Amino acid sequence: MRATSIYAAGDIRVIDAPDPKIVEPTDALVQITRACVCGSDLHPYHSAPTRPGGTTIGHELIGVVTDVGPDVQTLSVGDFVIAPFAISCGRCEFCRAGLQTACVNGGFWNDANLGTGGCQAEAARVPLADGTLVKVPDLDPTTADDGLLASLLTLSDVYGTGWHAAHRAGVRAGDTVAVIGDGAVGLLAVLSAKQLGAERIVLMGRHEARTDLGREFGATDVVAERGQDGIGQVLELTKGGAPNVLEAVGHLPAFEQAVGIVRAGGVISRVGVPQYDAGPIGWAFFGKNTTLTGGPAPVRAYIEQLLPAVLDGRVNPGKVFDRTVSLEDTPQAYAAMDARQALKVMIKP
Amino acid sequence: MRATSIYAAGDIRVIDAPDPKIVEPTDALVQITRACVCGSDLHPYHSAPTRPGGTTIGHELIGVVTDVGPDVQTLSVGDFVIAPFAISCGRCEFCRAGLQTACVNGGFWNDANLGTGGCQAEAARVPLADGTLVKVPDLDPTTADDGLLASLLTLSDVYGTGWHAAHRAGVRAGDTVAVIGDGAVGLLAVLSAKQLGAERIVLMGRHEARTDLGREFGATDVVAERGQDGIGQVLELTKGGAPNVLEAVGHLPAFEQAVGIVRAGGVISRVGVPQYDAGPIGWAFFGKNTTLTGGPAPVRAYIEQLLPAVLDGRVNPGKVFDRTVSLEDTPQAYAAMDARQALKVMIKP
Repeated sequence: MRATSIYAAGDIRVIDAPDPKIVEPTDALVQITRACVCGSDLHPYHSAPTRPGGTTIGHELIGVVTDVGPDVQTLSVGDFVIAPFAISCGRCEFCRAGLQTACVNGGFWNDANLGTGGCQAEAARVPLADGTLVKVPDLDPTTADDGLLASLLTLSDVYGTGWHAAHRAGVRAGDTVAVIGDGAVGLLAVLSAKQLGAERIVLMGRHEARTDLGREFGATDVVAERGQDGIGQVLELTKGGAPNVLEAVGHLPAFEQAVGIVRAGGVISRVGVPQYDAGPIGWAFFGKNTTLTGGPAPVRAYIEQLLPAVLDGRVNPGKVFDRTVSLEDTPQAYAAMDARQALKVMIKP
Repeated sequence: MRATSIYAAGDIRVIDAPDPKIVEPTDALVQITRACVCGSDLHPYHSAPTRPGGTTIGHELIGVVTDVGPDVQTLSVGDFVIAPFAISCGRCEFCRAGLQTACVNGGFWNDANLGTGGCQAEAARVPLADGTLVKVPDLDPTTADDGLLASLLTLSDVYGTGWHAAHRAGVRAGDTVAVIGDGAVGLLAVLSAKQLGAERIVLMGRHEARTDLGREFGATDVVAERGQDGIGQVLELTKGGAPNVLEAVGHLPAFEQAVGIVRAGGVISRVGVPQYDAGPIGWAFFGKNTTLTGGPAPVRAYIEQLLPAVLDGRVNPGKVFDRTVSLEDTPQAYAAMDARQALKVMIKP
């Protein structure tokens, strides 16, 4: 099959790779209908070490089951499924608690322990298929609307991640929420906060096409300024700070911004993978009784809950995709997202 | 009156100071029955800049109201009261939410804005008396048992602070809790966790007399080791980490320890004032979906709730006091606590 592989920072190639095979009796094989490039894929795109053999990449997919191992109980060949970005058994303490990203038996895509490959490919082997995959009922992907497929694909990562931010921040009806970051996750954190009933949603971002989509998703205010200017504007808009701050970037200045705009007693919920080891959690953070939460989103815990509104078109998270490429053109998808010419690029294998 | 003042690191003196007077119509004056030295007083004791005029110090007191301003409505001369370490109006958004340490009208002791002095003294002026003070009903401090007075005094800070740690961590019946620090706050965090129903309480501390009191308060296990050894022991005892970690020290190694021992999806609740600006909140913290919470305890929010069990002797938080001195001997109290010869010293003006 054809698959995407990264050889070094900036060096993405589509190569011939071995067809995936059932290895464990709990495996399923999936023919990939749609995959995509994630903002977090840009981190290795910027800084991956050189690996002469390359390593496959990608962690978001929807597709059709083409084979199952003998112990798979809930899935059959032909099922149309969403695969979360984490593999999880569904049975351990953490899976039962809805924290599938901490599954003691699971792992991730491109995971040496599990022997998984990347999802920017034609097909994938999915370990622990019963725990990992979610079947989409009554939908034929060959005839389904492209926009619907795009929205379903967001359930494999960015929508569930935005939802995780809002859910862990405890957003409730009537709340004032600030969202830092106008990438796909930030915009879907806006959508999630809106779904949870937030009354005022301040989006911090400076790419107008993106913040326009943020307004469509529910943002009531947009603050384009960064640093102290941005903090000052949010403090003014919120009369002293936002009780719920969703940080969807992962760089230190975004976290510093969160600390600056959070209201006393408020919550900073981070879902951008931190690209720093140490952050400001001294008096400016502590003195306000700030809570910091978040982490890799257990999107598996949210898919069933979020699916109905996607299927009936009440929400359209797939609008974060503003470009579609063939699998062979995946390197251009990285380049376009890196240059901020595209918000999020879908791959049609 | 006589009052304690700090002139430089290590330089504590008891001096003549002006008698406090009613300044605002919402003030009360309190004759101090008992005060004490806090672990957090040791921070300025170590690092205060030299101030030739000195500055009064102390933030914990119980005492008797000797005068009230014309707008004070809930207190009368002769009332026996507990004063929290924060001054609060009781009416603003934050006070109503139980976050009196963020009161928009309040402040602290030794606070230039409010014109408050320190509490290691014979008397104190208490601004916003209705919001700040809690009356102890039906108790005559001149005849009350010394142990009971000691326990009531802990409600002004250390017991409420330990409670805040356990409460914000969300400790519930059956939980496993780790407490870092065997100072007065750590030990009272143990007591609080026990009151909230924790089944297993691992106390990290290495001063045997203190950890023995911790066992009396409810600790089921004591880990004396620090650093990686201590982390390893707690991970083994808890089979992978404690879901609730109460950090009652405030130094960076204690926070690092907390990050090392918290279970995936768990909470670190900090009440030790951080003596650092930046801490490790990168992948090791984020990857586990760790929540960090805590801050200056709004003890005012907890006094009424904690008071009955103190008054009827079901709990004896006052056991953290292992020495009592006269006001004139306050400098020795600092020295004894600094040398760890005393856990917490009570002052009898």
